[in-house]
Amino acid sequence: MLGDIESWMIAPIAAVASVLTAVYFNRYIKRQEQGTDRMRFVAEAIKEGAKAFLNRMYRTLLIFVAAISILLLIFLPQPIWSSQTPLNNIKLTLAYLFGSFCSALAGYLGMDVATDANLRSANAARKGLAKSFQIAFRGGAVMGLSVVGLALLGVSIIYLLTGDASMITGFSFGASAMALFAKAGGGIYTKTADIGADLVGKVEMDLPEDDPRNPAVVADNVGDNVGDVAGMGADLFDSYVASLMATIVLGSVFGGQLKSLSLVFAGVGCFAAIIGALSVKVGETSDPGKILNRGTYLTCAIYASLTLISSYLLKYDYRIWGASTTGLLVGIVIGVTSDYFTSINRTPARKTAEASVTGTAINIITGYSYGLLSVFPPLIGIGLAALVSYNLCSSIGPEYGVYGVGAAAFGMLSIVGMVVTNDSFGPIGDNAKGIAEQSSLELEMIDILDKLDAAGNTSKAITKGFAIGAAGLTVISILAAFKEVAEEKLGTTIMFDLMDPLVLVGALIGLAIPAIFSAQVMLGVGKNAFKMIEEVRRQFREISGLREGREGVKPDYARCVDIATKGALRELMPASIVAITTTLLVGLVFGIKALGGYLSGAIFSGLVFALLMSNAGALWDNAKKYIEEGALGGKGSEAHKAAVVGDTVGDPFKDTAGPSLNTLITVMGLVANVFLPLFIAFSLM
Amino acid sequence: MLGDIESWMIAPIAAVASVLTAVYFNRYIKRQEQGTDRMRFVAEAIKEGAKAFLNRMYRTLLIFVAAISILLLIFLPQPIWSSQTPLNNIKLTLAYLFGSFCSALAGYLGMDVATDANLRSANAARKGLAKSFQIAFRGGAVMGLSVVGLALLGVSIIYLLTGDASMITGFSFGASAMALFAKAGGGIYTKTADIGADLVGKVEMDLPEDDPRNPAVVADNVGDNVGDVAGMGADLFDSYVASLMATIVLGSVFGGQLKSLSLVFAGVGCFAAIIGALSVKVGETSDPGKILNRGTYLTCAIYASLTLISSYLLKYDYRIWGASTTGLLVGIVIGVTSDYFTSINRTPARKTAEASVTGTAINIITGYSYGLLSVFPPLIGIGLAALVSYNLCSSIGPEYGVYGVGAAAFGMLSIVGMVVTNDSFGPIGDNAKGIAEQSSLELEMIDILDKLDAAGNTSKAITKGFAIGAAGLTVISILAAFKEVAEEKLGTTIMFDLMDPLVLVGALIGLAIPAIFSAQVMLGVGKNAFKMIEEVRRQFREISGLREGREGVKPDYARCVDIATKGALRELMPASIVAITTTLLVGLVFGIKALGGYLSGAIFSGLVFALLMSNAGALWDNAKKYIEEGALGGKGSEAHKAAVVGDTVGDPFKDTAGPSLNTLITVMGLVANVFLPLFIAFSLM
Repeated sequence: MLGDIESWMIAPIAAVASVLTAVYFNRYIKRQEQGTDRMRFVAEAIKEGAKAFLNRMYRTLLIFVAAISILLLIFLPQPIWSSQTPLNNIKLTLAYLFGSFCSALAGYLGMDVATDANLRSANAARKGLAKSFQIAFRGGAVMGLSVVGLALLGVSIIYLLTGDASMITGFSFGASAMALFAKAGGGIYTKTADIGADLVGKVEMDLPEDDPRNPAVVADNVGDNVGDVAGMGADLFDSYVASLMATIVLGSVFGGQLKSLSLVFAGVGCFAAIIGALSVKVGETSDPGKILNRGTYLTCAIYASLTLISSYLLKYDYRIWGASTTGLLVGIVIGVTSDYFTSINRTPARKTAEASVTGTAINIITGYSYGLLSVFPPLIGIGLAALVSYNLCSSIGPEYGVYGVGAAAFGMLSIVGMVVTNDSFGPIGDNAKGIAEQSSLELEMIDILDKLDAAGNTSKAITKGFAIGAAGLTVISILAAFKEVAEEKLGTTIMFDLMDPLVLVGALIGLAIPAIFSAQVMLGVGKNAFKMIEEVRRQFREISGLREGREGVKPDYARCVDIATKGALRELMPASIVAITTTLLVGLVFGIKALGGYLSGAIFSGLVFALLMSNAGALWDNAKKYIEEGALGGKGSEAHKAAVVGDTVGDPFKDTAGPSLNTLITVMGLVANVFLPLFIAFSLM
Repeated sequence: MLGDIESWMIAPIAAVASVLTAVYFNRYIKRQEQGTDRMRFVAEAIKEGAKAFLNRMYRTLLIFVAAISILLLIFLPQPIWSSQTPLNNIKLTLAYLFGSFCSALAGYLGMDVATDANLRSANAARKGLAKSFQIAFRGGAVMGLSVVGLALLGVSIIYLLTGDASMITGFSFGASAMALFAKAGGGIYTKTADIGADLVGKVEMDLPEDDPRNPAVVADNVGDNVGDVAGMGADLFDSYVASLMATIVLGSVFGGQLKSLSLVFAGVGCFAAIIGALSVKVGETSDPGKILNRGTYLTCAIYASLTLISSYLLKYDYRIWGASTTGLLVGIVIGVTSDYFTSINRTPARKTAEASVTGTAINIITGYSYGLLSVFPPLIGIGLAALVSYNLCSSIGPEYGVYGVGAAAFGMLSIVGMVVTNDSFGPIGDNAKGIAEQSSLELEMIDILDKLDAAGNTSKAITKGFAIGAAGLTVISILAAFKEVAEEKLGTTIMFDLMDPLVLVGALIGLAIPAIFSAQVMLGVGKNAFKMIEEVRRQFREISGLREGREGVKPDYARCVDIATKGALRELMPASIVAITTTLLVGLVFGIKALGGYLSGAIFSGLVFALLMSNAGALWDNAKKYIEEGALGGKGSEAHKAAVVGDTVGDPFKDTAGPSLNTLITVMGLVANVFLPLFIAFSLM
């Protein structure tokens, strides 16, 4: 089908365009001035710490990657001793390795440019908001466009070389497993450092945020880069690839146009993100948060229009476009409602702040309760998106229904370039402010950088909504792909009937996995934060003149960086390996049906906890900020102290456990898909 | 079938025996001495407060009961205008009213005797541990045996009069809806008072627990009775009836022996509980916690033996006995693992206590994380119980599989008399200690009562495990009953296939309901606690000499009781009504399949949150107690302050939201069953 090949080739072309735009932005940033010696010194320390951590993390993960590679090589898609096509085992292993590599590369590149952009953005604050914003935004865009470009290029290359959807599953599994480790490791790192810096520096010693006397301050800034930039980039890389993979697998079961439709739409989405990213600019007096959101909405509109035109040109059924657009709309709705539950200007954050007056316990109960409430709109949104897109497409033909759900998922993810851009913008702004504070720049500059920081928080709510919603739909379509492929291989119809005790037992086990994973990483944070706190306290005690800020007295930043690094490396593997192993065990012991229930259970509790933890965490953060802006007694009041504790509880909720759960459930789904032949061959039931 | 009638008549006989034993115990308690004037004064205040609250609560609920009665009368089982048998509408309404009444009565009786027993148990501490324990235990047993007696009697009467399983559904719905309100209301009351008493009295004013100078102390003691005794009694009343109902409905679909088997087993369970309760005695030097648990195990053993003998005599298939015994065993396993996660002597509580040294935030993160881990063993246990009992019974015939799950559920609940006894023992011991403290009794007496209090906490872990596990299996069998009846009425096979978008959308909505419910009741607690704290602070400020304990100066206890009462009454309805209304809406809008998904979703997140919240709450409590016993700096240290905040966060977790969720999911399941004909007739999809 030449027509088919021609049309989907838009995907690699768009991917290359995306990467080139990222290169252009990167050169733009490198050209900017770097500021004073002190600033360069601080930025260098952050960059080095981040690089060192990522290097060590990826090196540690080599063992895991090697182990999985051997497993794949021997057993999949067929045990090599009984396989007619042993070459496929090599191909799958290579696809897996390529996925792991691309995911790591995207994280690394993003971190690299972010640590260039933060310094230059801080320095540009001398020239005003517009320039400073531009640098930070383009820094984010390098990450955003690299993620989407590399992902789409990787998928296209594999599709081009093998033409086999199951190889894309291998690629996707590699990317997701890497992302899970990167999120867990980065998340543990960043919160270990953050809590250490806050609890001793801010609460006990009364130092301001990012004060250079605080021994954990560099580790804290490093954490923003390895957690928020590299971690988040890897996360969306993985969701994006997984949603493409699910629709390509479903498409290749159904055949026809569906085989490559999602690649075409993804290519179009890539262009939409490039145009969106190029269009974002602020004036000196504009509200950068609004501008960021406007950029997101613009990208959505471009995407919807371009895919409509493509559907016309390529004679796709419009109902598939409808499903994809439904996903997009629901993504926006989820973002807006998450914004309500977390925004500093809304009832939940205000009420939580007010509750702080009565003490810490009521602050926590109130924030947690609003977090619980916040799960409702997104769950309804995801459910309705699935229902509408399914019914829309099943009117084409009954088998198209599940494809519709997949289309809704990649509709939500289509603008991932823009989502990652905004997400990476946040830590760049945050770091720029940190560098300015630590280099004692003028107050006006810090004010400007404050605005960047706040804008990052505003846009985060919307983009996080997208990320969680999209992950939900993606994993549902991964589950659908799992079922379709299993049915094809077994030649029977499979139902995941909740009244079937195998499905039920699977679901009950699956439910527990996100809980266990969250617990493990949060306990990891708790344990490391304990050590960090002890170390920071020790430095203040033993280094004389540190607290008073005596000339020439410096804390030992490196030691804190080291504690965060070692702790994160020790803790990042176990939780992920438990999840992967349990998935294999359920498949091998209880079989396909139980695995369907298991994945559903994991999706269910994964979504609930991801939403609860992300939103409650953001809410506590903003309740604290609201008090810091002067309400209810302001900084230093009892209410403020209570709110700081709430914020600290929220830290691992929103930055370690919550956002890893997307990736967790995706990885579980991919393990099920990749190892499906094993389960069919060896399952006990 | 005379043979059949003969055999199941054991149920009402056992029920009457149970009630008579309760009456005997009650008279035993009334005969005991009441102690000093001061003690009687305190006890009287508690009793009056509790009575006043229950009276007002049940009066408030009359509106709800009336509204539902009218609805039932008009619409169910058939709309009265189109019904061939309008008498059935009247019958169903009466069954519903009878269920509501019995549930309220059980709660009321239990509260009444508990407030007699607490005073007498406190006074008996003069004579030593044995006597004091005996009174408290028998007080609990009055509640336990009344609950099981009234429940079984109620079900038997309806079964005898109508012979119609669907009428039992109405009875069960009445009992459960009432229980939900009682749990929510009691839970909000008790924690409002508890937090108020603790945060101001203990933390701000440094008063000991139960100090008579604390204005909220009476409200706190009242709370124990209306929350833990009346609420818990109503809760287990409802699970017990619901599990019977589900198996009777399933049995009447399948016919034969199954129709009445569960009544026979329930009757046997009743006798087991009576024997168990009569056997429990402690010596002066025994460990009362161990004795309580031994009583539970003994009851289990008697139940298993007697049901085995009955199966032999009545020629029941032994595999059904196997399923029921599987439930019993898994109940014990769940209890033991919950005990591990909450016990003061185990790693989780110890680690959480140690984390308190670093401050409140880490205490909360650590406790919450262990709470998350604690959900795993029970979920596996419930899943395996379902799988084993299903497969055991489906080897009799495929349709017996779901009945097996029901049998496992009532196996777990068979010893409910003993479970409630132990659960009510807790607050009686707690209150006895409170009365002793407030009446300034000798230290030796208080020491003895301390042992009772601690024993209550030990046995609680095991019995709570039973309660949650049983609720899980019960609701699964309610769902099975729903499906069977729907299939019968529609004449088609129904699958709750997770890949069906209707089932999926239902599940996603259902997932949110326990979260929303928890949020609403906890926000209710937060709001009321705020008022309570203000009031307690006001009294200490304005009543001169109160804090110093000047002779003749008394706080205004009544005002605190009033705040707790009014607050609970205002907050108890909305959350429950949201849950009931959403269930009706899902059924009417999306239909039967979606409702199946919805119930499953609610079961899933209901179980996860119930376990998480109950266990984390108990864990924080014990971490605090561990420090209070002198570890890590003991009382008054910074670690202790942090642990107190953790305990306060845990209060509404473990005593308001967590334990209401069992009842919530049961009510949702019953609403679906009762209103099924409406959904079939009027659903939009």
